[in-house]
Amino acid sequence: MQIITLTSDMGLTDHYVASLKGTIFSRTKDVQIVDISHDVQAFDVAQQAYYINNCFRDFPEGTIHVCCVDSEPIINFGSSQDSAVPAILLFEGHYFVSNDNGFFGLLLKNVPTDSFWKIDDVLSNPSLYRFPTKNILIPAACRIANGEDVSTFASQADEYKRSIAIAAVIGDNLIKGNVIHIDHYGNVITNVTRDLFDRFGENIPFTIFFRRKEYYIDEISPSYNAVVPGEKVAVFNSNGFLEIALNRGARTTTGGASTLFGLSINDIVRIEFSPRGSKDTIDSLF
Amino acid sequence: MQIITLTSDMGLTDHYVASLKGTIFSRTKDVQIVDISHDVQAFDVAQQAYYINNCFRDFPEGTIHVCCVDSEPIINFGSSQDSAVPAILLFEGHYFVSNDNGFFGLLLKNVPTDSFWKIDDVLSNPSLYRFPTKNILIPAACRIANGEDVSTFASQADEYKRSIAIAAVIGDNLIKGNVIHIDHYGNVITNVTRDLFDRFGENIPFTIFFRRKEYYIDEISPSYNAVVPGEKVAVFNSNGFLEIALNRGARTTTGGASTLFGLSINDIVRIEFSPRGSKDTIDSLF
Amino acid sequence: MQIITLTSDMGLTDHYVASLKGTIFSRTKDVQIVDISHDVQAFDVAQQAYYINNCFRDFPEGTIHVCCVDSEPIINFGSSQDSAVPAILLFEGHYFVSNDNGFFGLLLKNVPTDSFWKIDDVLSNPSLYRFPTKNILIPAACRIANGEDVSTFASQADEYKRSIAIAAVIGDNLIKGNVIHIDHYGNVITNVTRDLFDRFGENIPFTIFFRRKEYYIDEISPSYNAVVPGEKVAVFNSNGFLEIALNRGARTTTGGASTLFGLSINDIVRIEFSPRGSKDTIDSLF
Repeated sequence: MQIITLTSDMGLTDHYVASLKGTIFSRTKDVQIVDISHDVQAFDVAQQAYYINNCFRDFPEGTIHVCCVDSEPIINFGSSQDSAVPAILLFEGHYFVSNDNGFFGLLLKNVPTDSFWKIDDVLSNPSLYRFPTKNILIPAACRIANGEDVSTFASQADEYKRSIAIAAVIGDNLIKGNVIHIDHYGNVITNVTRDLFDRFGENIPFTIFFRRKEYYIDEISPSYNAVVPGEKVAVFNSNGFLEIALNRGARTTTGGASTLFGLSINDIVRIEFSPRGSKDTIDSLF
Repeated sequence: MQIITLTSDMGLTDHYVASLKGTIFSRTKDVQIVDISHDVQAFDVAQQAYYINNCFRDFPEGTIHVCCVDSEPIINFGSSQDSAVPAILLFEGHYFVSNDNGFFGLLLKNVPTDSFWKIDDVLSNPSLYRFPTKNILIPAACRIANGEDVSTFASQADEYKRSIAIAAVIGDNLIKGNVIHIDHYGNVITNVTRDLFDRFGENIPFTIFFRRKEYYIDEISPSYNAVVPGEKVAVFNSNGFLEIALNRGARTTTGGASTLFGLSINDIVRIEFSPRGSKDTIDSLF
Repeated sequence: MQIITLTSDMGLTDHYVASLKGTIFSRTKDVQIVDISHDVQAFDVAQQAYYINNCFRDFPEGTIHVCCVDSEPIINFGSSQDSAVPAILLFEGHYFVSNDNGFFGLLLKNVPTDSFWKIDDVLSNPSLYRFPTKNILIPAACRIANGEDVSTFASQADEYKRSIAIAAVIGDNLIKGNVIHIDHYGNVITNVTRDLFDRFGENIPFTIFFRRKEYYIDEISPSYNAVVPGEKVAVFNSNGFLEIALNRGARTTTGGASTLFGLSINDIVRIEFSPRGSKDTIDSLF
């Protein structure tokens, strides 16, 4: 059975997402629709890329992901970098249907790709622009679901729009990362990957510093429960990112890590590696 | 495959909607359930009608729409206008199962209909009233889904309860409309339809005035991106209603059009047609 | 078709629930996933038990309920009461897959059960703990869905962890109950069951007192509409619990019963039975 996922900034209060689902069921049979999130911050293509990148591999290959954020096409006949045209990407066996508004660049981290198409005939009917997700992206997804060859309704294209995400940087005995997400629990997810961290070798003492300097962590735990409830904890989460959390913290009840550490998206998190010992070890000498 | 949609004011936090879905899967096979919205304002039958009217045609014909808002039956043996009995409507090939609480009147805009039934045996078991959506409306929807003839469990009825929605009115060179909805982005949807607007002819200059008199718009744009980000824009949306928006505005982040223009549901929006020229054109003469 | 339900405290904004759904569709075919709630208060196992207990019987027998709240295993080699290991319960024909964190005790109200298994091999791979719902509970649910015998991947166990929910208590002509839930409408659900109430016999006058002593109710109504809109009303709801409501009250608009009566979860509700007459009857004598 074909799966189509939907990600948008439309919310679930209005009828907009239901319009998309009705259109899918009107155009294809035997399909399962899965909502990834409809609470992406409005027009925040980077957040959409974050959500999709962190879960699309959980779906079976062949899944079609309709990425609805910022879907109104922009056609500039000058620079193609200023345009944003509806397009289709085949990546790791998954289809992504999105406006080329930077989303593909963020998802692919700007590596080249062969399987990229721009959807044809987008200019022919401007009234489609009144609800472009429903009128352009969903029909394209349904044609893929129905087994049509993408090349019959889209044209192979050389390149998608490049887009820059903030990357963690490395210095002497230092990683300078950024907060890229704060989740439902108030857990703080950074762009520091396990791969990057491991370059500094095993068993080198380190200290993670946040915006509020009175807090720091000098240990990576295997899971939240490695510390007592309410205690701060650093883990590499299941997506491989360094995550700063409170065990059993929660934004909606007790306040999570983001509140305690005063951290917002894009804030800097510093990891200092100290071959001589972590902050606690050194402090204890005096 | 049969599709059943659900619209309610129950929210998704409690188990109520799950009870409805479990009941459906217990009573019928091979069904897909689609949520239209469960965030209708409590007991707001007009908002339910707005959501459903704007998306039901996107679903395949034969879809069954269970409309759960204000579902407790009211039986008055005097005036039938004071009663509210569970009923079924067949309209444009779609089934609507709802309490007759004004919803049908708002959906149909009070035009006569032939295919309207009142569900039988509602009075026989008062304990059904403790969760009437689950105990009365859902079972009726499942019987339709299972191919039972409606007339075996419901009785053809002459008329549904009439209900009045505020309509836009026309004066000399004037349309006086109302805000009927504010969406997730803060976009302001009015009851001014394209048909009504077009009666004033093409190329007649006009000015749209809001509650905050310092703002006005004198142009209809083909889509949001016709103006620069953050700029105000008037469009006829995909449902044919005049919508006042900010390009890339959003209630949850920057504040949308409703905030900027100080507009709430039912507020008046005036469109003045000026054969001599729009406000800007005339102002520029002085 | 197999049904799997999901209940969690993950919210629907992040990609976490979508990860679970993708994993299900990657591991089993022909399955329908139903969300019970993803808005359980963080780590609130009692609230999860409340939601599931009140709707699981609406689903067909054989449904698999994945209960995701507080899913990180805790292994203590001392007392098994301090441990929390992933487990499976078969109860009234339904499967429940959950961490044994007290949820089973609350669901079963501590009665003995025969069909209880602890999932094997949980200790072998600690990296599973980074997202234990996805890595431990969902795979177990999918193996059940695929028809595998539970005993091939889980071991029969003697007992689940006991857990105590606050029960209503009975005194001389008195029931002292507690608020166990406040729903989307602001309706106040108590732990006073119809069975308990009926022990005091029929037609004995009574008065229900709340925190705000200026309010009381001395009648049980068959449904909300038995009183006029805005009026306070006591009903036994479809789950058999005494519920204090305002007819057409709503937390999000006019303010519901919880606001009017100043009631929060765990607050006491007293029902005094007065063979001599209810508060109103007695007051009227003076």
